[in-house]
Parts: sequence; C-alpha cells; structure tokens
Amino acid sequence: MQMPTGVHALVRRTHEDRVLRALQENGAMSRGEIARVVGLSRTTLSDIVGSLLQRGAIVVMDTDAARRAGSGRPAERLTLDPASAQYMGVDFGHRRVHVVVADASHEIMLSGSVRYEDSASWPVRTELALSLLARLSAEGGVHYGALQGIGIGVPGPYPAPEGAPWPRATAGATVLRPAPENVDVAFAERFGAPVIVDNNTRLAALAEAISGPESVADLVYVRLSDGVGGGLVVGGQLVTGSGGLAGELGHVTVEPAGRPCRCGKRGCLETVASVPGILATCWEFGLPLEDLDALAAAVDRAHPVVDRVLREAAAAIGRVVGAATMTLDPAKVVIGGEITRIAPVIVEQAAATLAGELFPTASAGPVVEAARLSDEDGALGALAAVFHSSPLIAKYPETAEVKGRTDARVSTTERAGHART
Amino acid sequence: MQMPTGVHALVRRTHEDRVLRALQENGAMSRGEIARVVGLSRTTLSDIVGSLLQRGAIVVMDTDAARRAGSGRPAERLTLDPASAQYMGVDFGHRRVHVVVADASHEIMLSGSVRYEDSASWPVRTELALSLLARLSAEGGVHYGALQGIGIGVPGPYPAPEGAPWPRATAGATVLRPAPENVDVAFAERFGAPVIVDNNTRLAALAEAISGPESVADLVYVRLSDGVGGGLVVGGQLVTGSGGLAGELGHVTVEPAGRPCRCGKRGCLETVASVPGILATCWEFGLPLEDLDALAAAVDRAHPVVDRVLREAAAAIGRVVGAATMTLDPAKVVIGGEITRIAPVIVEQAAATLAGELFPTASAGPVVEAARLSDEDGALGALAAVFHSSPLIAKYPETAEVKGRTDARVSTTERAGHART
Repeated sequence: MQMPTGVHALVRRTHEDRVLRALQENGAMSRGEIARVVGLSRTTLSDIVGSLLQRGAIVVMDTDAARRAGSGRPAERLTLDPASAQYMGVDFGHRRVHVVVADASHEIMLSGSVRYEDSASWPVRTELALSLLARLSAEGGVHYGALQGIGIGVPGPYPAPEGAPWPRATAGATVLRPAPENVDVAFAERFGAPVIVDNNTRLAALAEAISGPESVADLVYVRLSDGVGGGLVVGGQLVTGSGGLAGELGHVTVEPAGRPCRCGKRGCLETVASVPGILATCWEFGLPLEDLDALAAAVDRAHPVVDRVLREAAAAIGRVVGAATMTLDPAKVVIGGEITRIAPVIVEQAAATLAGELFPTASAGPVVEAARLSDEDGALGALAAVFHSSPLIAKYPETAEVKGRTDARVSTTERAGHART
Repeated sequence: MQMPTGVHALVRRTHEDRVLRALQENGAMSRGEIARVVGLSRTTLSDIVGSLLQRGAIVVMDTDAARRAGSGRPAERLTLDPASAQYMGVDFGHRRVHVVVADASHEIMLSGSVRYEDSASWPVRTELALSLLARLSAEGGVHYGALQGIGIGVPGPYPAPEGAPWPRATAGATVLRPAPENVDVAFAERFGAPVIVDNNTRLAALAEAISGPESVADLVYVRLSDGVGGGLVVGGQLVTGSGGLAGELGHVTVEPAGRPCRCGKRGCLETVASVPGILATCWEFGLPLEDLDALAAAVDRAHPVVDRVLREAAAAIGRVVGAATMTLDPAKVVIGGEITRIAPVIVEQAAATLAGELFPTASAGPVVEAARLSDEDGALGALAAVFHSSPLIAKYPETAEVKGRTDARVSTTERAGHART
C-alpha cells in the first residue's frame, strides 16, 4: 500500500477526517449527501470514499430505495463501521508493553499488556506487541483496517540526539536506551497508518493534560523515579525541542556544588529529588533506608528526618518548576511517580515553594497536583498523541471554545511512516 | 461584511489559501483549471473565487479565447492582483507606531512609522496608524482589500491577565500598560481581515526565529532594557501561556536575598540584568554611571568594574536561560536590547555560563547570539506572526522539510476579529 506524502497526504487526511466526522455526526448518508456536507467535488469524494471502504473504515449499510421519492437507481448509504478501530496507543516500558485501541468517538475498544525481560531486543518487543494486538483483535471482533493513527511511547530521549548522554554516563544508574529506530516502521508497515513515536514521559504529560475534568493546553509535568524526567505541553502541543531533549527538568542545576550526577554535572535536581537521591540524603542524615517500601514505612511513622529530606527535595522541585512556570505560564503543574503517592508532602511542599517564585500580585498561579494516571497508564498518553494529531475530530472543537474566545487554532502533527519504506 | 466563524471560517480560509497558492504557483488559470488543481466542487470554488474577486485579491486577466482549441464560450482566466497587499504588521511602541505591508510572496511592499507622545491614548494611536496606512496605500498604489491577516504588537502582557502585576507595582520604574482592548477590533473592522495581537517582545522573538539564514522552530529570546523581557518560540509557535504571562524570564529568581524587584519579589533576574539593574550594581561598586551613554564610555575604556558587573549580570542571564534550555531544548538563544550592542561581553559571558548548565556529553547546545533585529524592527515580528498563521502559504513547506524528515506539521492561529462585532 502506497500512501501519498507531504502536502497531498495532509490534504487527503483532512478530507478523510471530514468525511468520517460527517458520518459520525449525521449517521448514514449517500455519496451525494456527503459531497454536499463536506463541499468536495464528486471526483475527489469518490476517491476518498473508495479508499475508506477498501480499508474498512466505512461500510455500505443499505440503499435509499425505500425512502426514495423520485425514480432512478437507488443510492447506497454509507456508515461508519462499528467494529473498526480508529486509534492505537502502544507503550513500551522496560519490562512490558501495554496497548489500547479506541474507536472514532475515542472510546477504548481493546486493551492489554504483555511482559518481557528487560534484556529483550526491540524486534522481540515489537513482535510481542503485534501478536498481542492480533489476539485482542480476534477476541474482540475488531479490525485495524481503518486506523487513523498509531502512537508509540518509548523510553529515553526521542528522537535520540547524537551524542545523547544516556548510553555513556552509566555509573551504575538505570540507563535509558535511545529510541529504537525501526519500531515505527514495523507498525506503519503492518497497519498502513501514520505513526507518532515519542518519549513515554512526554506522552504521560499529554495524558495528564487531557485526563482532568477539563483538559489544559499548557502543562508542566515532572516524574520522580530512578531519575527525574519531565514533559511539557505548550499551546496544546507536546514539546520535543530542537534535539529531542525538551523536558529535562531533572538536569537543571539546583546546587552548583552538590552531588555528582550521572549526566556528568553536579547538583542536578535529579541528585536530590529522584528516589535514589532522596534515599541517599536520608543515609547522609543517619537514616539508612533501602528502598521505597522502607521509605513508606518511615513516612507512616512520621519520621522527622524523612519529613525534612522530603521537604528539601520538594523545595528544589518547586524552585525548578517555578522557573519553568515563569517561563511557560502553564495552567497546571503535575508531579508524578510512585513516591508522590507514598509521600503526598512532596506535592504540598513543591506547591508552596513554587508559589513563592511567582508574581506576588498575580491573581493565580498554576494548579499543582499529583499525577492522576499511574506509570501503568502510559499507553493512554500514546493514544492521546494520536487524538491530538487528528485536528478536525479531536483538537479543534476543544480549543476553539476555550474561555469563550473567538480564536481558532488547529494543528496536525503526523509521521507518515510509509514514506520511509 | 459578515465573516463566517469557527470551523467554517477555518475551512474557508484553507480553501482560499489553496486557491491563492495555486494561482501563485501556476500563474493565470480558468475556474475549471483551478477546480481541478485544488479538488473543490464547482459550487464551493465559485463561492471562494467570487469572494476573492470581490475583495480584490485576484483579478480577471483575460479569456482563453485565443488559446482555445474547441468551441463554446471562452473562459475567464484569473490571476493574483500584484497591487494587492496580503499581510500587514503593526508595532505600537511607547512613542511610535511602525507598519509594514507584504505581498503574497512575503516581499515588503510598504513601510513607515509615525511618532506620538508617550501619553497618547489608544484611540489616538490607532487613528494615527490607520491614517499612516491610508497615506502609504495612496502613495504606493497598493490596496488592502484582500488582506489575509493583520499582526499587531503591543507593549505589556497579552492577553492582559487579571491581576497583572504591572499597573500596581510602579515604584518609579517604567510601567507597561496592559494590552489595549479594542485595537484589534478597530483593525478588523477597517480591513475585514483576521487580526492577531500579541506582546511585542514575543513578536520580536518570532522575528528573530525566522530572520537568520535558516529559520528555527525552537528559540528562547531575552531582551535587556528598562526591564528584562522574554519570548519563546516552541515547535514553530509563539508561546502565550495559559494567562498571557509566558516568557517572563526577567522575573525568575537568581538571588533569593537580592534587591527588591518592582514585581514585589526579591532578586529577580531583572534586578541584576536590566539596564537600571546594571547601573545600580556599578554604583554599588563605587562607579556612578548615569545612563547607557556613560556605560558605553566606561566599556570603551575597558573599566574593570564595568567588566565585572557586566560579566556577573551575564552569568545570571546564562543560568536562567540555561534552565530554560534544559526545559525547552531550543536551537537558538537570542539576547537583545541596545546594551548588548554596547557591551558584546554580555552575550559572550552568558553563552559561556549557559554551556556549563547543559549535558556535558551532549554534542551541541543552542547557538547563543545577539539579536539580529533592532528594537525598531518590531513590525517585522507582527508580520511574521501573520505569515505563520497562514499554513499552506507560509509554514507548511518549511517544517515539512526540516532535517529531511517526513513529518507533516500544519498550524493555524487566527483571531476572527469580526466575530466579536
């Protein structure tokens, strides 16, 4: 299957989106009715409809013979195929892959996960994910012939920058792999749909942005785990940066003479606010804690050293996120990672410190809150990335009505995986 | 003139853009030829072409009678009107307004400026700008009937946040006005075109992003003057933030126990790196300098106190911009303001400090450079904002070819001023 590229692919996707949207809003329609609603020529429409029928996105429901007043050949009425998956989200973690599949109205149709060894190669991981998807499809009676897009989350910077620090500065810490090169091609070839790949912490930021009661267009996300990662949503778009390194809040310097960091600098936020950083500070204060479970027990006992260490770590987070807030003016700041569930004081103290970094006379700073989604919800972020890439269906109506303003904003970011083959 | 709003306005603008682009690429065409090239139905196309003819964006050049092989009524051939302005940029400063007008290929057709008193009201400023534009139009033989968009830069946060600090915390410093409410309506009503309004420091950031030999999609801009302002371009888009305050790099804390800032905090970057801040530090070191001219003379004499003060101020800039760089991973950092022309050491030292904030093993950080455009070039930023709002003509082909990747990215941000009337 050869897909058009560049401007033509974009125009075609836009036309397809409009046809699908018209069918979603109006129910079954004839070709003539669709042409009138979307304002396309018969020739262009025929081409688009033919492709959607062939891919199984739409089906012929009946003809209008029964309802027809005049004479002539009855027209076929077309409708969305309810068994047709439209969006796919895939999250590759270090030890498992999680997949979710959604229909045209963004409802989850299928989900599942499969574990693998940390040492599993990317071809093995990819094949496990594809097998899982095939099994879910057969069990659920859902087909993937009409996917509008596939989002894939991977660990590590994406796109992997040349000279990325991760593979070099191991020093015994968890090393994030650079993004695997061909995972997108494998999915694009299997399903014939555009693929978006991004770092999974970044995708988690996007999932947080749209998971609350009201989605927000500007969000700063920081996640505390073995390291400290981050992700930014700015103007409704996920931020990659010029070299794939945007969101590295964990490597902003907070103590110029502080501990060496695995990145090669000293006193990065990560050295004081990651789980290993917090445990190390506890040791320095004479409280040897082995792991998160021991930390949780100390928090339960309201141990004063633990409280102090957590508050100091959280204050450092508040200063770094405060500077990011002055820079980006987000509506929301989200702090994630299992440790924030164990120790809510982290979010409380970070919010308090952050408030002191803002304009004293401004009416309100960002909402600061713990992550809504767990580390296991990564595939929802990948799915969110695909929703956002489909402008007329997903993003446009939302931002058009923000605050009752008359601004119109539409964006599409897609990766036409097929163009590389 | 009633303009459609929401999705319909957007689809219509997209159609108009495609028709204009087709005429720009192919020269004169008949309606039938245009319909085939852009894939619109005859009915939709007739509507679009009628509107473009009425507004004067396109004109009837001739008929195809001479070149026609078959019989039948000759078809009119349509072409872009070379006297038709397509884009307008307006920069309202404290004491003058500067305007530029460009054609479909982004060439400047007209430009000019007019001064006013700092105390001039917004209705007076607006009327002066409109009169200037009318005079330039008459002198240049250019008409504004087919403007695709108008960009307007204003001082101060935009949109003006509720409880914005500026009008309250005067303390003798220059007070930036909140953005004037109706300047956009006045221009939209006069010209019947979408209007984009934004803070002029932000628009200067956009102008810097596209003014180099290669435009960059991710840029951090900081300007040193009476205060310290900033602007961000992220993923090719100007960043406003959730409350209009994005880019306030001047109010990131650099010395928690430092001088009081006009914003009500202590030790903001502005207190050490604005022109008044630098002069105040010189006074503290026993070197009383009255103004920029005196500073320039001291720089010329290579006065050691001045060098030290400038380097310390620049190091503070480097730390703040370094944190912003870890957050956003920009391709370029630009430092502007007249003082950087007087004292190039500021940019040199800021770049050196910034380098120490980045991943030691990463191959390259952002390019750090002095602003290319002067404070007088603000209208180019406003114009750039409008270029960027017209996806098919301006932005798409550019980002589609970045790094030879196959990503497609299209964005439109427009403000349909007429919808408010």
